[in-house]
Formats: sequence, structure tokens, C-alpha cells
Amino acid sequence: MVKTIGVIGGGQLARMMITPAQQLGLGIKVLAETEGSSAALAATQVGDYTDLDTVRDFAKTVDVITFDHEHVPISILETLEAEGFNVQPNSRALVFAQNKLEMRRRLTELGLPVPSWKAVSSVTEIAAFLEAHGSTAILKTPTGGYDGKGVIVVNDPAQAAGWFEKFDVLLIEEKVEFVRELAQLSARSVSGQWLSWPVVQTIQRDGVCSEVLSPAPYADFAKAADLAKAIAEGLNVTGVLAVEMFETADGRLLVNELAMRPHNSGHFSIEGSFTSQFEQHLRAVADLPLGSTTATQAFAVMLNLLGVDDSNTFIEHYPIALATTGAHIHTYGKSARKGRKMGHITALSDVSLDEAKAIASAAKQALHA
Amino acid sequence: MVKTIGVIGGGQLARMMITPAQQLGLGIKVLAETEGSSAALAATQVGDYTDLDTVRDFAKTVDVITFDHEHVPISILETLEAEGFNVQPNSRALVFAQNKLEMRRRLTELGLPVPSWKAVSSVTEIAAFLEAHGSTAILKTPTGGYDGKGVIVVNDPAQAAGWFEKFDVLLIEEKVEFVRELAQLSARSVSGQWLSWPVVQTIQRDGVCSEVLSPAPYADFAKAADLAKAIAEGLNVTGVLAVEMFETADGRLLVNELAMRPHNSGHFSIEGSFTSQFEQHLRAVADLPLGSTTATQAFAVMLNLLGVDDSNTFIEHYPIALATTGAHIHTYGKSARKGRKMGHITALSDVSLDEAKAIASAAKQALHA
Repeated sequence: MVKTIGVIGGGQLARMMITPAQQLGLGIKVLAETEGSSAALAATQVGDYTDLDTVRDFAKTVDVITFDHEHVPISILETLEAEGFNVQPNSRALVFAQNKLEMRRRLTELGLPVPSWKAVSSVTEIAAFLEAHGSTAILKTPTGGYDGKGVIVVNDPAQAAGWFEKFDVLLIEEKVEFVRELAQLSARSVSGQWLSWPVVQTIQRDGVCSEVLSPAPYADFAKAADLAKAIAEGLNVTGVLAVEMFETADGRLLVNELAMRPHNSGHFSIEGSFTSQFEQHLRAVADLPLGSTTATQAFAVMLNLLGVDDSNTFIEHYPIALATTGAHIHTYGKSARKGRKMGHITALSDVSLDEAKAIASAAKQALHA
Repeated sequence: MVKTIGVIGGGQLARMMITPAQQLGLGIKVLAETEGSSAALAATQVGDYTDLDTVRDFAKTVDVITFDHEHVPISILETLEAEGFNVQPNSRALVFAQNKLEMRRRLTELGLPVPSWKAVSSVTEIAAFLEAHGSTAILKTPTGGYDGKGVIVVNDPAQAAGWFEKFDVLLIEEKVEFVRELAQLSARSVSGQWLSWPVVQTIQRDGVCSEVLSPAPYADFAKAADLAKAIAEGLNVTGVLAVEMFETADGRLLVNELAMRPHNSGHFSIEGSFTSQFEQHLRAVADLPLGSTTATQAFAVMLNLLGVDDSNTFIEHYPIALATTGAHIHTYGKSARKGRKMGHITALSDVSLDEAKAIASAAKQALHA
């Protein structure tokens, strides 16, 4: 039986796992990158997660290893698994969250809907793809990208020249003409129990999630949930799985990205769901029964608090913002940086998404965010 | 501006302050009695809270001192206050939570309703009180009592002989013929903002809180709230104040005990209120605006998980209990001991207290508690 959870990475996701760990009576230890991380309270070790000995030393102190991010080298996880350590999700699943080419290949194999794509290893191949797909496409590095980094819209093959310096093979995809972006959050336990939340709509600004609406208005909930379940089972995911999707004008859902950990699109669940994504992730990787995903109120809106400059942590505006009735303000304990995820605000309503949005926006405005 | 909260005492109340501290972006440090306390995650110091130097060393590392319990000697707090440390609630208020004689005197001065009482310093005085009050009364030590300890029902003055060995003066009170016990939870900030939750009904077994019903059925909510407000203001309380009361057959409310910290009767507020008592306590002592005390659902029932013996921590039953839909199970990370508060269960309902009770009871049964 799992008694202590080990989280690699000391960001806000690890931070928000602390509460459910305590509530469930599970120990929680964090391997953080730096002192003073968001999850510093539970950080029992500070070190380099790309160093095998560091990660192994950490693994020895816990009953299961899980993640705040998907950047731990697969080779390290394979070694630990071979040595008998419990890693959830495991390296065979995680490879599909780390490597977008592998993910596209595997989803295509499973017959799941993805944008047209190709692995390309030269500017010539990019030119051919552009010609076949309306002269605009999306070029992605297979690994290392996040929040809009490692992604570029290409119209001219010359734009991609430098991209082959670090990668032999890149992923190129059609630029999907989507009407909106959706995210389907679900969780699957080590024993295979699977539960989902209603699909949400996500609104990005400059490639970073800005706003989440739960549930996504007029969405095909069953279709989105079925797709997520097929991915969770097909890729043998354990823990929380976020499937980011494009919805097209003709109602198709195309998988964009996957994350195998709690995800920005699920922060609303802290107050908006009987079981939050953070608690569910811990239950899933500890192989406890999953908790109900029933909504606490019909509608939830989550707004990210993104850094406005390199000094404003919003702290000086808290007193006024906290007086805003109805908004739940979460902080991540980070130093300020323009564009950085510093915190988030959630508001609920039994009346409408508009009401929830108005409450959250008032709090955001009070924070000068 | 308060940036770091210091909590003296490492029990479950300190443990449950960790979540809102992180959410509000406040640092939290705990002076714990022992290693491996309930609040170990935030324990930055382990030491004796009756030692001035220990408490002062701790106070230097935080912006405000507050409490998990009311056992820190008043003389220590007075010294720290004279040295300029920020103590909330302060020593002049806390004396009324520590010393039941002082509390009775002050509430009587304020004209607030309390049982008939007297300070007695001899068996003869006890005999006289018994004669005047129907030959049964409640004898209490002025300080140090909790959860039924330091309290005895006396019918015969001889029962009290040994009680004068440790105390020169004891408190004797009429045995109130109450129909039920209520608790009024509220919070008052350093600036004087005051907010209450609806009065709850508490059910004790063997002098220990067993069950809390929120709101208390058919209670006089305004009367209970007014009484709590008069006490909070009259005693200059800051932070959460719990007023435990007797309700008599003729509808009078008589103050029984006071606690100036989060209280067992308010645990339901974690899920049952927009702002939990733990968050509200931090807001109040950090002098931030108080949060809304609106109920998230109409009814809440909280059941304590009391130790059944010296080995069962209920942990082995968690997997089944966690599958019980609708119950929020909280653990305190304590070793097992018969009668010890090991955790609690909260269930909410928009339908009835009975429904909430049934959900909570099913989870408790699954835990073999």
C-alpha cells in the first residue's frame, strides 16, 4: 500500500497536491529544482531531475514516483522501473506525453482523430507538406515544448532552417481551422478505474492558457469523454490525463496535446468538483478508489494570473481582492516574471458561466492582473 | 503587512491552516511540541511552548503569532507583546480562553448569559453552592481542562477534596438542564471586521465532540450570532472565536466554553462554507478582509473519527471508505490512541441534515470507526 507520494518537480502542480495528500493521510515529498519553489513546503530534496543518482536517491524515500512536469528523461525512469521502483504514469506511457511524434504515431495507430501530420527531417520535406496543406502549417519540436514554446506557424520552409540544429526530426501538422479549443480531463488508477470531468473550453492568449470555462458550452460531452478514455486505456496512462483538443466547425474533435499530470485546464476542480484533479491524481497513482467528479455548482470559470512584469506579485492588491465576494484566489508563491503563471482565480455559479466569469473578472481586476 | 503566520502548536488545527496559507500566499511556520506532529509539514521548530526563549526564537521568524491551542502561558505572551511582537489573539483576550474563572467574571460584567457560578476555595464553599443549586453542580479547574478533562459533576463536597491540591480556587457552576448544545463560530479581524457562520448543534460523547450539525435545526440564529459578536468585541478577540452554549427548554442560550482559534465545531466549513474557519482565522490574524461565510450547500454534518484502540489508524480501511460517494474524509496523521481525535468526515446535502448524516455515517462505518 502506498503511504508516501514522491513528486518530481516543485511547481504549482506539486504545491496543489499537498492539500489532498494531507487530507488523505498520505505523506508527500517533493524533489524540487531549486530552493524556494512553489512546493517548498513539501520539498525534501533539491536537485537535478536529469541526474539518475539524484532521482534514485529521491525514489528510495517514497512509495511511488509521480510528476509535476513531463521533463524527466525516459531513460532514467526506465532504469528505476527495472530496479523495481513504482513510477506512475510509467515510462511507456510518459513517452507519449514527452514526445509529440511518438504521440501522433500512437494515436494514429489507435485510429484516434489527430490533425494531418508528418515527421520531417529536411526543409524540402517541409516544403512538400506546405504545398499539400494550403501553404501554412505548424512545426513542432518533438520534445521540450510547452506554453507556446517549441511551436511555430510556418508559411515558408526557410523559417524552419535553424530548427534542425537541435533536432534531426521535427513534427509538422496541418494548421487546423478550429472554432475553439477544448480540454478533456480524466483520471485512471493503477487498477484501471477511469473517471472524467465534463469537457471544458480553454482560451489561450499568446500560447498560454488564460481562461477555462467548465463545462464547455454546447459540447459533445460523451464524444470528448470517449476519446479521452480511449487514450487513457490505449496509452496505459495512470493518474490525471489532460487531452487538449481542437473543435472544428463541422464538430470534429482533433487531439492537440496530452499531459499526464494535473493540468491548468483542471484547476477549477479544486472548488468546482467534489474531487479535485489533485486529489484524484494522488488517488490514481496510489491505486486508491477514484472520487466522485460531480460538480459542486453547475458552472465554473478559472482565470490564470499571469505575471504583468518582473516585480508585481499582486500581493499588495490582495487585501482588496480578497474582499471580492465569490472568487477563490490561489497563489503559487513565485517571484514575478512577465507572462509567468503566478496564480489563478476560480469562481462558481449555479446560474450561468457569465455570472461566474463576472465574479472571477472582478477579483482579477482588483488584483490589477 | 503580514507575510508569514506563526502557529504555536502542531496539532490538527495547525495542519488544516496549511492549505489556506498556501492558497492566500502566506508563509506558515509551526512551533510543534514533537517531531512527527500533525502539522509536521510546516513545523520549522520543535520545542517547548512554555519556555520563553523557545517561543521568542520562533516569534522572530514570523510576522504574527497565533495558536493551535490555548496553553501558552500568558506571562510569555505578555513579555513578547511588550517586546513588540504581534500576537493574535493577544494576551488580554486569551486569558479569557485559558482561565474559566476570568471568563465567567468578564461575561458576567458584560451582562452576557452564563450559568450560575461561583469561585470556591474550600469544600465548605462547595457544600454551600450545592445546597443552593439542587445538590448537583459542575466543578471545573480554572485552567488546563479540555475535552472533558478538568471537569467533574459533584453531588457530594467530599468528591472535590483532592481538587484543591493543584488549585487554590476552583469554578463551580449550576448543572444546566439543557435540551442541546450549540456552538456559534465567528471571526474578528485585527481591524475589527466581524463575520459569523450559522450556529451549529454539537453532540458530545464522554465529553468529546462527536457530531456537528450545520445549521442547528430551528435555532435562533440572530440571538446566537449577537451573543458571539458581543463576546468577540467585549473581549477584543481576534481570529476565530467558538462560543459553546447550552440551549435550555425555555429557549435561553447560556455560554459554556470559549475557544479563540479554529474549533472542532467548525470543521464542516472546509467544504460547507465559501470560506473555511481555517482560512478565516488566517485572514483575521493577518488583518486581511474576511471571506464570505455563505454555505456551499444547505446542510452539513461532521463526524469525528475517534481512535477505537491503540493500533487502528483506520488507514487499512481507507480504500473502501474513499469509494463512498459524497463523504470528505480528513486524516490528521496521528498515531492511534483510544478516544484520540484521528480525523473527521464531512458530508453536505442540499436536501436535509438526514441525507448528509447518512452519507457521513456510511463512510464512518466503512472505516470501522
